[in-house]
Amino acid sequence: AKTLRIGMIAGDGIGRVVLPAAQRVLEAVPGIPKPSFVALDAGFEHFQKTGTALPQETVDTLKSECTAAMFGAVSSPSHKVAGYSSPIVALRKEMDLYANVRPVKSVEGHDPRMVDMTIVRENTECLYVKQETIEDTPTGRVARATRQISERASTRIGRMAFEIALAAAQVKAQRGTSASSYGWTGKPTVTIVHKSNVLSVTDGLFRESVRKVASEYPGVEVNEQIVDSLVYRLFREPEQLSTLVCPNLYGDIVSDGAAALVGSLGLVPSVNVGDSFIMGEPVHGSAPDIADRVPSIANPIASIRSAALMLEFMGYVEPAARIYDAVDDAIRKGSVTPDLGGKMSTDEVTNVILKAL
Amino acid sequence: AKTLRIGMIAGDGIGRVVLPAAQRVLEAVPGIPKPSFVALDAGFEHFQKTGTALPQETVDTLKSECTAAMFGAVSSPSHKVAGYSSPIVALRKEMDLYANVRPVKSVEGHDPRMVDMTIVRENTECLYVKQETIEDTPTGRVARATRQISERASTRIGRMAFEIALAAAQVKAQRGTSASSYGWTGKPTVTIVHKSNVLSVTDGLFRESVRKVASEYPGVEVNEQIVDSLVYRLFREPEQLSTLVCPNLYGDIVSDGAAALVGSLGLVPSVNVGDSFIMGEPVHGSAPDIADRVPSIANPIASIRSAALMLEFMGYVEPAARIYDAVDDAIRKGSVTPDLGGKMSTDEVTNVILKAL
Ligand SMILES: CC(C)[C@H](C(=O)O)[C@@H](O)C(=O)O
Ligand SMILES: CC(C)[C@H](C(=O)O)[C@@H](O)C(=O)O
Repeated sequence: AKTLRIGMIAGDGIGRVVLPAAQRVLEAVPGIPKPSFVALDAGFEHFQKTGTALPQETVDTLKSECTAAMFGAVSSPSHKVAGYSSPIVALRKEMDLYANVRPVKSVEGHDPRMVDMTIVRENTECLYVKQETIEDTPTGRVARATRQISERASTRIGRMAFEIALAAAQVKAQRGTSASSYGWTGKPTVTIVHKSNVLSVTDGLFRESVRKVASEYPGVEVNEQIVDSLVYRLFREPEQLSTLVCPNLYGDIVSDGAAALVGSLGLVPSVNVGDSFIMGEPVHGSAPDIADRVPSIANPIASIRSAALMLEFMGYVEPAARIYDAVDDAIRKGSVTPDLGGKMSTDEVTNVILKAL
Repeated sequence: AKTLRIGMIAGDGIGRVVLPAAQRVLEAVPGIPKPSFVALDAGFEHFQKTGTALPQETVDTLKSECTAAMFGAVSSPSHKVAGYSSPIVALRKEMDLYANVRPVKSVEGHDPRMVDMTIVRENTECLYVKQETIEDTPTGRVARATRQISERASTRIGRMAFEIALAAAQVKAQRGTSASSYGWTGKPTVTIVHKSNVLSVTDGLFRESVRKVASEYPGVEVNEQIVDSLVYRLFREPEQLSTLVCPNLYGDIVSDGAAALVGSLGLVPSVNVGDSFIMGEPVHGSAPDIADRVPSIANPIASIRSAALMLEFMGYVEPAARIYDAVDDAIRKGSVTPDLGGKMSTDEVTNVILKAL
């Protein structure tokens, strides 16, 4: 029998609160092998204690023992801290989790506005290669960063986007919208997000590589949009967007914007996907302002949906759908945390979802 | 007596329609020296005809003859066209127009949501230095772009942002909100937009340089926000944002997002500002879908407000305020183009504004 061993990297702040909520749901959902969990270290607080943000042991354990993982959140010091580098960025690269898939959807029968889109964000390159230099010049310091876009990474993220657009169509046909967190409205469509009117070489290569993949997917429509006007459209006509494929930084920005459409960052899940590993991760951050509240009021939904998304990408489509439905129910009933206007604590919301499973 | 000679670079598409509207307003507004105008070439269509997107003659005439300029719009081919490079990006650099100032504000007594912010976008560097390379490797092509952030450019854009935050406070105190297109709510505040949690060297330098300028402006509050969560906040609580200072690309994206808040890109003006030259420019593009409509339905307001902003930055504060008020009146009366739900043509809207001047 298959086993399910899941690395739990809570990280900083509310990561420590929302990851246990996801764990409770994974323990309770029927239809998957009984999961076991291993707690792993990473984060800014871990760095402050030990001098390391991402211990090698965490990476080794993920690679040797784990079927999948969940990541909580990481605190971002905005000033430069010598020796510190974001562990989530490092983890995505170390595990070659080349896609960050972020479905943003409204809840049918609850939200006034119909949003059902998935941002497929390239997860390993762009400005995230973090090759930066700085030099003194007669007119002051000049810093430079390298933005890397490769044919290989653009092609594989393109393929992922087309697969997701197709899967969305299939799931939707089988079970109706609410069962899937993939974005889809009508014909499967992939929108390439770029800025090739300025970055004709790098974004030109991204655009061209994704378009080349398109020929393998004759059933999927392809279009494209410059990133600035995409952000404009995101707020003017989000109903018309379905699967977006973006270079790393645009994907980061666009997905936060999309999250605003559905009412709270606390609702939006993601998975980091590689060819042989999956890591769920809520899109929200560590929320230091509420991290120490007792009882916790952190919204567990992004984390719980991320666990479902992780299962979905492992092939456990039915159990994932069950979790999505239970979450949607809780939202419809108003069983939610204060960020959504509710009065419930993290645990209370999780209990409601567990009961509905 | 001072003379006012204004270079008119209509460019492509609706640029050719909205710039004449701005010219009519500049000809009619009292309180400025009688302006003269010189039509100058640039754009993608000009490139297709002549092989040059930005003729040297345009730059020379601006430098030798003109007090200021207006730029319309430029079409952006999304595929790479050999030899073509965006003339607006080139113009900003050639004329050292280092700041792109984009006020986004709702109209009092009309818009349900109070938005009154100004995006101060660095206009000469970041990824817009357009240093790109591409090479063949065993795993396919790899493209790279350089993102440059200098202490000099970051310092001067920082200073511009603090000046704008202060001027906003002053104008507001004198004339009330509607007289100014600067964003301001309460104490003058500058928000630094960056991503130094990932780009600690380049965005770190931007952040640090702007913060250093802050010490010259003890009356202005400084805070900061990571670009992705800024875009989230932009849509969750835009009322709380006032003056934002951004590296080039973030400023491009954030200002399109902000435009969505006030109902149409067709409303949002900008000025490109250097130490010795000013160029007004609507934030919208060339809108090829409606460019050939007769009569034209292109919204002239962004262009007209850009002309006012140009005057404001040249010191003609009263005439600028008159134009802003006339525009706000037209919006309140519903004398608007179809993008705002109206039925009027470009000329009809312009006539209404001219009458109210
Ligand atoms: C914390 C930060 C490094 C991260 C990113 O930029 O990828 C976050 O914003 C995200 O979207 O997961
Ligand atoms: C047309 C394009 C090059 C330009 C830019 O990116 O600066 C436009 O989007 C703008 O905002 O003025």
